[in-house]
Amino acid sequence: MKNYDVIIIGGGPSGIITGVTGKKQNTDKNFLIIKKEEKGLVPCGIPYVFHDLKDISQNAMGPKPFIDAGGVVLVDEVTEINIVEKTLKTRNNNSFQYEKLVIATGSTPTIPTFIKGYDLDGVKYIKKSYGYIDDLKKETDEAKNIIVIGGGFIGVEVAEQLAKFEDKNVSLVEMEEFCLYRAFSKEVAEKANEVISKTNINLFTNNKVNEIIGENGKVKSVKLASGEELKADIVIVAVGYKPNTELAIKAGLEINSNGAIRCDNYLRTIEKDIFAVGDCSQTIGFVTGRTDSIMLASTATAEARILGYNLFGIKLLRNFVGTLSVFSTEIGGIVFASAGAIEQSAKYENIEYVAGKFTDFDRHPSTMEGAKKIMVKLIVSPRTGNIIGGEMYGGKSVGELINIVALAIQKEVTVYEVISYQIGTHPLLTTAPTKYVLIKAAEIALEQMNKE
Amino acid sequence: MKNYDVIIIGGGPSGIITGVTGKKQNTDKNFLIIKKEEKGLVPCGIPYVFHDLKDISQNAMGPKPFIDAGGVVLVDEVTEINIVEKTLKTRNNNSFQYEKLVIATGSTPTIPTFIKGYDLDGVKYIKKSYGYIDDLKKETDEAKNIIVIGGGFIGVEVAEQLAKFEDKNVSLVEMEEFCLYRAFSKEVAEKANEVISKTNINLFTNNKVNEIIGENGKVKSVKLASGEELKADIVIVAVGYKPNTELAIKAGLEINSNGAIRCDNYLRTIEKDIFAVGDCSQTIGFVTGRTDSIMLASTATAEARILGYNLFGIKLLRNFVGTLSVFSTEIGGIVFASAGAIEQSAKYENIEYVAGKFTDFDRHPSTMEGAKKIMVKLIVSPRTGNIIGGEMYGGKSVGELINIVALAIQKEVTVYEVISYQIGTHPLLTTAPTKYVLIKAAEIALEQMNKE
Repeated sequence: MKNYDVIIIGGGPSGIITGVTGKKQNTDKNFLIIKKEEKGLVPCGIPYVFHDLKDISQNAMGPKPFIDAGGVVLVDEVTEINIVEKTLKTRNNNSFQYEKLVIATGSTPTIPTFIKGYDLDGVKYIKKSYGYIDDLKKETDEAKNIIVIGGGFIGVEVAEQLAKFEDKNVSLVEMEEFCLYRAFSKEVAEKANEVISKTNINLFTNNKVNEIIGENGKVKSVKLASGEELKADIVIVAVGYKPNTELAIKAGLEINSNGAIRCDNYLRTIEKDIFAVGDCSQTIGFVTGRTDSIMLASTATAEARILGYNLFGIKLLRNFVGTLSVFSTEIGGIVFASAGAIEQSAKYENIEYVAGKFTDFDRHPSTMEGAKKIMVKLIVSPRTGNIIGGEMYGGKSVGELINIVALAIQKEVTVYEVISYQIGTHPLLTTAPTKYVLIKAAEIALEQMNKE
Repeated sequence: MKNYDVIIIGGGPSGIITGVTGKKQNTDKNFLIIKKEEKGLVPCGIPYVFHDLKDISQNAMGPKPFIDAGGVVLVDEVTEINIVEKTLKTRNNNSFQYEKLVIATGSTPTIPTFIKGYDLDGVKYIKKSYGYIDDLKKETDEAKNIIVIGGGFIGVEVAEQLAKFEDKNVSLVEMEEFCLYRAFSKEVAEKANEVISKTNINLFTNNKVNEIIGENGKVKSVKLASGEELKADIVIVAVGYKPNTELAIKAGLEINSNGAIRCDNYLRTIEKDIFAVGDCSQTIGFVTGRTDSIMLASTATAEARILGYNLFGIKLLRNFVGTLSVFSTEIGGIVFASAGAIEQSAKYENIEYVAGKFTDFDRHPSTMEGAKKIMVKLIVSPRTGNIIGGEMYGGKSVGELINIVALAIQKEVTVYEVISYQIGTHPLLTTAPTKYVLIKAAEIALEQMNKE
């Protein structure tokens, strides 16, 4: 039996960042990451394997930073955690003793067992597995008719990539009225739909797959609720992910109502010396404090940094306790992004809000080459003026502009402050200083507040 | 004599934004802007008039938002302010009574009277005047040999634009070892020099113009300290700007050591009911509280918003009292930006600091098309961990990334907080979540702090 001060189960972003950060903080401790596959993938890069990236190997992510920091990596699978003995067993019959254990087992795609034919050959998922995606890439390269089920980020991005091959016939089926409806208000989601419709994707919203039809056990077509039958060589299901917690459950750890491992603000489970981080661990809404289920590499790595610093005692306070989801994507050359509360989530949680919306160009003057329209909407709590959310679309700069909103939410910035916020502007890079989008949106939110 | 509740002298960004904001807050008051020229220019867009913008009219900026809000505009020039009577006289023999007066007279280019030949025909400036720039544009279109004196932002941008015409011979002369040395540390300024050198510009740094040589009163060439004589059809001097305060001085207002109108945090001069805003008014360093001389449209408009809200009493507190300079520009496709303290300004002001530096790609994986290297350096006060400055270069996203740093400085964000900062990342838009540049730079600054 080998002995490690810290054992991390899982080599995804949260496992690696916990390892790197933890090892750098505790150079005298030995760290082991146990991961299932030799090679890993940049999770958010997976959709781009299907077209933009020349080769899947371009999207590889390995534990090199962890090894460079002095950590040890083992390719194996943990099959049992003994909480009392503080030991692990693996598929290859290794056994380990740990002082601290980090569970970073991630998430797995939701299997739509409610759709007839879900188990046919040719029904595929966007698994975070190098080998699986490598195979899937080869299959999609051969396929002509591809159906993507689910218009969330992964579904939309995969469909968009596949539809860039002009000889493929790619359909995207979404139950809601709009794609990306979890991350954007109606107005922005509507714009996203418009952009998706302009691509080569056949978009079916307000619709769903009633049945996946097979022939000799292999996918042949898909039957929609609207009656259409779409020919299919491959069906890619992207209807969500669920925390991968089998091992944790077996070990007796507590699981919350979203199926994630319950833990505190410092990623500590109920069991002393066992931590859970990333997609498999619980997240909580930053306004309400209720559990929700955000699974993002950016959130996971933020947690992992906190955990890495605090493995052997709380040294670095977590300044922002809730989980802030910050989404961004690019479809048909337009970037869509949101952070924190959006209108429907605020309503659902019964949070009073006003919205301040402003549209302008991301260059100034707007006649500048490459200028794109940029729309910003801020969601503001009307009594205090605190920014609790924002969404936007426009050119590439939206990818970082949303992070200004993210910081503002985390630092409890009010619209009063934003109005005197000193920003940098440049003709080739931003909106004009006289109407910088975030400041104007804050001004408009303030006007709304005064009307209330 | 006409009577106005608020008269604003000057129709640049700070005049207009004061007017728009003030009028919206005080719909019952009447507002007048008196400006010298019918047409105005987007100030930071001026360099782009010389090449990228097809026509100077594309860079026009008018008082339309102010007029839409119900303000009145007069094209005229104020020649006298009578503080006691609260009246104004103008060149066209108009006279006005004001309740509140806003001086927003901007700045004018520094004339290098210390250079022999500075008054020759063909020696030009980047004046914020539509008519003047319109003429200069026509002259540069005709000219072949153009010398730009001064490697600050305006000098570099104008030279870069002119050098895009392949048939022109454009030289840029800078006294310091590097261009943009006021806004960037040696390392970043060195990179900027490298990029400038790759353009069509003939760059002369560590050098200066000893004499502008004329023939029949017209510029013929320029003699450098290094001995070279450069042929010149036009010489463009861009060695800085000074507050335009003649009128204020004549009226008896107090002027600070930088030649700017002295005023408090709410832009109030020593004289009740007279305000000064924008380039003509004083700015103070945000760390030291000493006067400095920042002249930026972004800073001016931030002040103008504060003033607009507070013209008739302080309603909106100014949350960040110092002036934060945020610079950004793009040269040869690379964006350079800085905010707040840089290493040499920190040293000059005797401020203890550590620097955290990190370089990565602005897409992930870095094999993603269009990925550019991005370098971020954070300047941090080592006892508290407060971020007091930052600089960076890279792709377009730097234009907004610097504004995250700007917000962090204004909200007194520490590197401890940044480490758990939740950000949004996307393969096509940002660095990877595992090594988001701002967070990594903060981590490295923290390592430096621990070494101290």
